[in-house]
Amino acid sequence: MPAPITLTTDFGLNDGYVGVMKGVILGILPWAQIVDISHAIAPQQVLDASYVLSTAAPYFPRNTVHVVVVDPGVGTERRPLAVFTDRAVYIGPDNGVFSRVYRDENVQSIRQLANPSYRLPRISNTFQGRDIFAPAAAHIAGGVPLQSLGPEVTDPVQVTLPQPQRLDDGGLKGQVIYVDRFGNLITNIPVGWLGGRTDWRFEIGGVVIDGFSSTYGRVQPNEPVVLGGSAGLIEVAVRDNHAGAYLGLAAGVSFNAQRSLGNSKE
Amino acid sequence: MPAPITLTTDFGLNDGYVGVMKGVILGILPWAQIVDISHAIAPQQVLDASYVLSTAAPYFPRNTVHVVVVDPGVGTERRPLAVFTDRAVYIGPDNGVFSRVYRDENVQSIRQLANPSYRLPRISNTFQGRDIFAPAAAHIAGGVPLQSLGPEVTDPVQVTLPQPQRLDDGGLKGQVIYVDRFGNLITNIPVGWLGGRTDWRFEIGGVVIDGFSSTYGRVQPNEPVVLGGSAGLIEVAVRDNHAGAYLGLAAGVSFNAQRSLGNSKE
Amino acid sequence: MPAPITLTTDFGLNDGYVGVMKGVILGILPWAQIVDISHAIAPQQVLDASYVLSTAAPYFPRNTVHVVVVDPGVGTERRPLAVFTDRAVYIGPDNGVFSRVYRDENVQSIRQLANPSYRLPRISNTFQGRDIFAPAAAHIAGGVPLQSLGPEVTDPVQVTLPQPQRLDDGGLKGQVIYVDRFGNLITNIPVGWLGGRTDWRFEIGGVVIDGFSSTYGRVQPNEPVVLGGSAGLIEVAVRDNHAGAYLGLAAGVSFNAQRSLGNSKE
Repeated sequence: MPAPITLTTDFGLNDGYVGVMKGVILGILPWAQIVDISHAIAPQQVLDASYVLSTAAPYFPRNTVHVVVVDPGVGTERRPLAVFTDRAVYIGPDNGVFSRVYRDENVQSIRQLANPSYRLPRISNTFQGRDIFAPAAAHIAGGVPLQSLGPEVTDPVQVTLPQPQRLDDGGLKGQVIYVDRFGNLITNIPVGWLGGRTDWRFEIGGVVIDGFSSTYGRVQPNEPVVLGGSAGLIEVAVRDNHAGAYLGLAAGVSFNAQRSLGNSKE
Repeated sequence: MPAPITLTTDFGLNDGYVGVMKGVILGILPWAQIVDISHAIAPQQVLDASYVLSTAAPYFPRNTVHVVVVDPGVGTERRPLAVFTDRAVYIGPDNGVFSRVYRDENVQSIRQLANPSYRLPRISNTFQGRDIFAPAAAHIAGGVPLQSLGPEVTDPVQVTLPQPQRLDDGGLKGQVIYVDRFGNLITNIPVGWLGGRTDWRFEIGGVVIDGFSSTYGRVQPNEPVVLGGSAGLIEVAVRDNHAGAYLGLAAGVSFNAQRSLGNSKE
Repeated sequence: MPAPITLTTDFGLNDGYVGVMKGVILGILPWAQIVDISHAIAPQQVLDASYVLSTAAPYFPRNTVHVVVVDPGVGTERRPLAVFTDRAVYIGPDNGVFSRVYRDENVQSIRQLANPSYRLPRISNTFQGRDIFAPAAAHIAGGVPLQSLGPEVTDPVQVTLPQPQRLDDGGLKGQVIYVDRFGNLITNIPVGWLGGRTDWRFEIGGVVIDGFSSTYGRVQPNEPVVLGGSAGLIEVAVRDNHAGAYLGLAAGVSFNAQRSLGNSKE
């Protein structure tokens, strides 16, 4: 059984572009296990793709091959890459989409996908997912040695990721890094930074929220709540509503936490 | 070949949540056959999930494992269940989503998913689909004996399903239970109750429709028509339009049928 | 390993209809490789389905079985077909959806799906995808001989496809045949007809665009650009915008090309 291949793109599912990539993969590796992560990444939002992939990759089997095709610069000169870590293989354009991989995993080798044997015979300017990344994924999942892919890359493009901060006064300072389909505002502060305590006071976009909750159940409809999300990060939700739309907030907004004085909430 | 595993959720396909569940399954059962039923169940609509699943399950191979994660109460105390019937295995929260299974199939055993061996090592409050239901599905499709899952459950939550009625005067009384993507208003009255006759008069939301049709072809554009749907239930469509929006009707509205007097229509 | 089976429909992904088709396939061919091409074909748009399929099929392994269920006439009398070519097998209604297959591929045999052994036992009027096409696909991918499917068909329905023209003055005349999710206006003129030159002047819906580009990079945001699409056809895009909406143009609009006089652009 070869390792699974996952696909993350901004192609949508309407036009058959994703299906074409799967056809290419199956032509090379007929018994491939192909899994869609998302094809609804906001167009060309490299950091959204990076975040979504970072929540999914830890739950896949070791050596899964993750293909990401989200690229504002398609058709210009960027190197197509394969990034080998001790967890998985990541395939996509050298545009910073793997910045979280470089930060969070042990990178063993980064290869430029330069070997024409592992591409389709004809390469278009506009669909590298089909012509370069899908065949590379199939060949790699099928066992091609990484040395044969192309030259080592030592200077991949890295995007500066917003980092959460622990302040001197014990407070925490972060920001929203992703808004999911439910409208939940996901911050970059790990839940663990709250030290297991619930007596915190949070502020986001001028809205103050008292106390950290374990579930939605403790608040009223349309009331905001701060809780721990499934990726281990603090997030802000509004019960029975889309927090982003309801509060008028989006990715990039600051999120602050201070220990409450006096009365604990739980 | 293990039995297929199907997934039905209200997660949408944007954020990678469904892909994560598949990653967990493949980590346990690498050769799994995973099929999406729907990830666009209206948020937290347990009865919609129950209906969609009931239309799909009879067409899957025996012993297919159907995972349903639609749950208004996620994070509160509900038991995670595995329901074994003579047709299939159903996995999901004990919130009534399996009410149609209890009504329509021979239940052999209901088990609480309590064995930590068949969960992920770390359980979040907000993503039981990933942490509990996906691993249980993979283990069950892989052959784990039901006795090892957890204690027998004898009092599962059941939602009262609207039942169609045969009236003393020969008429039929039911209601719309689901509106599909095409806008078709699907009722809970089986087509068989019409006795193979077409000379019926139907009433829905004040609109009267004469005659039961076998196809759309017999009516004009924007004209409502009553016909037999693919799930064996009577449904109301509007040719070339979205019946729900066009007629201003939704799930829950009453639907009535009376035998026409005198002239038969077909 | 059996040949892959692909699915192209206008069913959407909300209601479970696609999942049901997969359940039927797996009941007959448990190890099937099933790939979604698109389930968001505009309702009943036979030519859109035909186009999307034509961009995908060449990238699938030989003998892949492509199922297409897009049918304004469902429930009326149309023959269900299996079209065998030297590339693949196409399964769907005889409503013209395979017109591009008849034009572009070597057809070896067309069979009417008449053998009840390869259908579900009960046939509905409204869901031939589940009752006829899905089981046929599974049986054919599993190796059933084409002679057993049903009688040869010699007069399949063919839709007249718009043909691009080379004009006497060296110009080219075509039209938009598809608008993709990004808003790109895809014409029916092959890129090859430009003879490798970029010094062309294009006109579409009254908008004049000078020069053929290899990438988006050469134009400003909101500026239209003519470039070669991934299917080998000329297309019109608007940088960072939806060309169809921005220019107010849709499928069917004329597209003209003339060689520029004098100064070459690249």
